[in-house]
Amino acid sequence: MSRKTVQGNYFEDFAVGQELVHATPRTITEGDIALYTGLYGSRFAATSASTFATTMGFERMPVDSLLAFHIVFGKSVPDVSLNAVANLGYAAGVYGAPVYPGDTLSTTSTVIGLKPNSNGKSGNVYVRSVGKNQHGETVLEYVRWVMVRKRDESADVGGAQLPELPDAVDASALSVPFTIDTAAYDTTLAGSPYLWEDYEAGEKIDHVDGMTIEESDHMLATRLYQNTAKVHFNQHAQGQQKIGRRLIYGGHIISLARALSFNGLANAQFVLAINGGTHSNPTFAGDTIYAWSEVLEKIELPGRSDAGALRVRTVATKNQPCADYPFKGEDGKYLPNVVLDFDYTVLLPRNA
Amino acid sequence: MSRKTVQGNYFEDFAVGQELVHATPRTITEGDIALYTGLYGSRFAATSASTFATTMGFERMPVDSLLAFHIVFGKSVPDVSLNAVANLGYAAGVYGAPVYPGDTLSTTSTVIGLKPNSNGKSGNVYVRSVGKNQHGETVLEYVRWVMVRKRDESADVGGAQLPELPDAVDASALSVPFTIDTAAYDTTLAGSPYLWEDYEAGEKIDHVDGMTIEESDHMLATRLYQNTAKVHFNQHAQGQQKIGRRLIYGGHIISLARALSFNGLANAQFVLAINGGTHSNPTFAGDTIYAWSEVLEKIELPGRSDAGALRVRTVATKNQPCADYPFKGEDGKYLPNVVLDFDYTVLLPRNA
Amino acid sequence: MSRKTVQGNYFEDFAVGQELVHATPRTITEGDIALYTGLYGSRFAATSASTFATTMGFERMPVDSLLAFHIVFGKSVPDVSLNAVANLGYAAGVYGAPVYPGDTLSTTSTVIGLKPNSNGKSGNVYVRSVGKNQHGETVLEYVRWVMVRKRDESADVGGAQLPELPDAVDASALSVPFTIDTAAYDTTLAGSPYLWEDYEAGEKIDHVDGMTIEESDHMLATRLYQNTAKVHFNQHAQGQQKIGRRLIYGGHIISLARALSFNGLANAQFVLAINGGTHSNPTFAGDTIYAWSEVLEKIELPGRSDAGALRVRTVATKNQPCADYPFKGEDGKYLPNVVLDFDYTVLLPRNA
Repeated sequence: MSRKTVQGNYFEDFAVGQELVHATPRTITEGDIALYTGLYGSRFAATSASTFATTMGFERMPVDSLLAFHIVFGKSVPDVSLNAVANLGYAAGVYGAPVYPGDTLSTTSTVIGLKPNSNGKSGNVYVRSVGKNQHGETVLEYVRWVMVRKRDESADVGGAQLPELPDAVDASALSVPFTIDTAAYDTTLAGSPYLWEDYEAGEKIDHVDGMTIEESDHMLATRLYQNTAKVHFNQHAQGQQKIGRRLIYGGHIISLARALSFNGLANAQFVLAINGGTHSNPTFAGDTIYAWSEVLEKIELPGRSDAGALRVRTVATKNQPCADYPFKGEDGKYLPNVVLDFDYTVLLPRNA
Repeated sequence: MSRKTVQGNYFEDFAVGQELVHATPRTITEGDIALYTGLYGSRFAATSASTFATTMGFERMPVDSLLAFHIVFGKSVPDVSLNAVANLGYAAGVYGAPVYPGDTLSTTSTVIGLKPNSNGKSGNVYVRSVGKNQHGETVLEYVRWVMVRKRDESADVGGAQLPELPDAVDASALSVPFTIDTAAYDTTLAGSPYLWEDYEAGEKIDHVDGMTIEESDHMLATRLYQNTAKVHFNQHAQGQQKIGRRLIYGGHIISLARALSFNGLANAQFVLAINGGTHSNPTFAGDTIYAWSEVLEKIELPGRSDAGALRVRTVATKNQPCADYPFKGEDGKYLPNVVLDFDYTVLLPRNA
Repeated sequence: MSRKTVQGNYFEDFAVGQELVHATPRTITEGDIALYTGLYGSRFAATSASTFATTMGFERMPVDSLLAFHIVFGKSVPDVSLNAVANLGYAAGVYGAPVYPGDTLSTTSTVIGLKPNSNGKSGNVYVRSVGKNQHGETVLEYVRWVMVRKRDESADVGGAQLPELPDAVDASALSVPFTIDTAAYDTTLAGSPYLWEDYEAGEKIDHVDGMTIEESDHMLATRLYQNTAKVHFNQHAQGQQKIGRRLIYGGHIISLARALSFNGLANAQFVLAINGGTHSNPTFAGDTIYAWSEVLEKIELPGRSDAGALRVRTVATKNQPCADYPFKGEDGKYLPNVVLDFDYTVLLPRNA
């Protein structure tokens, strides 16, 4: 095989402290925003209408939080997860500077943990990825860990070095680098009268609607993010595997669930933090995604009267409505139709 | 169910005179234009090339008339037709200010008529929807009526209050807020030598080409318009209904038919009015759409020598070429493969 | 049939020397770029990030070479190949002025050769198509030839008049109207350390990855290019033909192969010339495309120390990985799974 072809890193190629500068910086444009809207039908007003965004206090309309996530994430795939067996989890995700159309994002990652698996075939790699804009400002950083194959099963890879990860991003670490003009904030145009004060910890919301995924949809999305993980795209190869199908990029499910969550969380205009996330079961073309959310915690933002935060768990299912909030079985395991458990923190305006 | 989830209005929630301010204003961008071109392959030169538009007399390239329609329409779905059984018709649609990339559209609707059905289960709701840009200028208003379920079949809903609706928008109500430089208008680049003078009332045109619809296509379009009607998206739920399939948004068929109509009506650069429209049969993924048109009326625009209007009926079929202009049977009913009867008024330049 | 419908030209309608001014000029925007990225997942840094492009020496980010090709090509279809039986080949393709978002492209073609087929049913038409921007600068010109049906098989169409076509575009004809700042060129961000000096004639590269095509994908792409060839879109009509399926636009395969070629040719930022191309077998939805490349020639650009060119053959296959470089059989014919043989010249930066 030509040495010019990128083979991706295997488990034994990683070392704690190693820094990976990822290729392909990416300018996000109004074109990406339109395609993102077409792919998910997202309706959050601050990322749908420039007039709404400027009335809120923005100079111009920012980009959807998760579109930024996918772009930052996609850069890291060729170096981190090209040989991954599974995308295991997220933690400590914090948003920084808002992303605007015209901004160019690039990503670097630092290896912060390694844990060889006892079977000797693979190990877990923990990386902290940092996405920056063209001014060098951090727009998003997060930790993810993936199970990566070893190139050589006999390679000696040392012992486990596990990072300390928070259960959730602390309120003091949340960044809201803008002020909402709450007097001008129009809840009718936003699609819901329910602001930060109107939610309570423990409250559950069934988002009601369902969205069926087609092969074209998830591939169009995943290519848009320049995410190169082979399992999403190559039916010829997947058909020869036990699973037999193309796997849908987990981030596609996150974006679908977030778009569905508009129905009940319409004023949750931005994601501030990604506390954790599990892709608990795979999804395939033809699956219909439903979602429900639970408010885990109501967070006051220090010194802020314009906005508050909610820590939310959004659960997505496949082919199962969420009126009874499906989650885990008595054995503590995710139910078979639960495909996503996403723990994140959203920003809502407060009452004027 | 959480009170925070939007359930949509049922028939008994509507009252004549009621005003509905719809959520989610929407900034239309070059991204939407590109995706619209990708979805339909539209080739009208004034909305394809900024050079052509400016040569015609525009400051810059305006947005396709029907893209504006879909955006304005989509806003109204959560309040008007989330619980609709059927989208019954359109009338009195008039375009106003041209829409340009960067414009933000928002929609309000007024209930102008109600007609309970004799079965007591539903009723027809007539609304006039008005789409405005960020300057408060009306870009499009139109009447549509939908059959909406009652929440409570025993609810007392009063008698019928029917609006008066014109058969067609009167020539005096047509708005053409720009002047075409007919000397500079290039029919070769526009794709056809036939200008307003070259058409005659009664003339029929087979648009020849056919376009097959895939599930991804119509869902991508309908999400782009932030139209949330469940029947278009949720195969899991639709599969449990008698119909068994996702229904394609009627507006998707209108846009396909209009794009096909380029072949014979290439100089019909803009839609000025929507006189009426019937989605006479449902369409599903896999159907191939064909179209033909009849010129119903040739309309002089008062005081205008640069442009004239044609009232046109465009009929779309599924899986049936239109060389013999399929329409209605001897019983006066639409033939089973006729899916759209769209009566609208288009603008064409006149001879220089 | 209405005379207003475009029927396209038949073989006997063409004459050597004839000039065809094609309809529908097209403004390329950031929306087209986003959709192109979504369709192919292209990762060449100079057309992905404005920061990268400006660091290289561009005023702003140019448009992908092949997106420009498809737009220029699409314009010519209604006049040249609407009645084509097959798209036979390309030659003498040369890029000129870079294309930037906001540029408007239009296309004219000149008939440069005609060759009636001995069966009397069709003939080959050779055209030189020239795509220009709104300033009248040529952005791309190329020759293609197609087999076109005769309207009337008894028509007398004269003898063959064949154009002289070069095997490859000469180095002296290559246009590189910009200078790369090689000191600032960042190979890490570009995704590969291998610059012009690192490639050798005869070198073969398996691009490893595979991409499965869906009906929606190729139709979305081909409509984006306003390419109206019926065989790509109309399943109702195709189903009645022997082939039974929609044929995928050959240019879609070229773009897929070029996007796959990033893995091994990441610094081949632009296409300078299209020397030749053969769509050796048809592709259909469901096919998975793989690709490999061979460096045919290493070309010094006269007087240039910032960049060099490589003449490359990229071969695409369907449903067959390319580790053993599948190409032609012992009989000299393309193997049945080889779908594209594309001979083109790319630009790479040289070592600083």
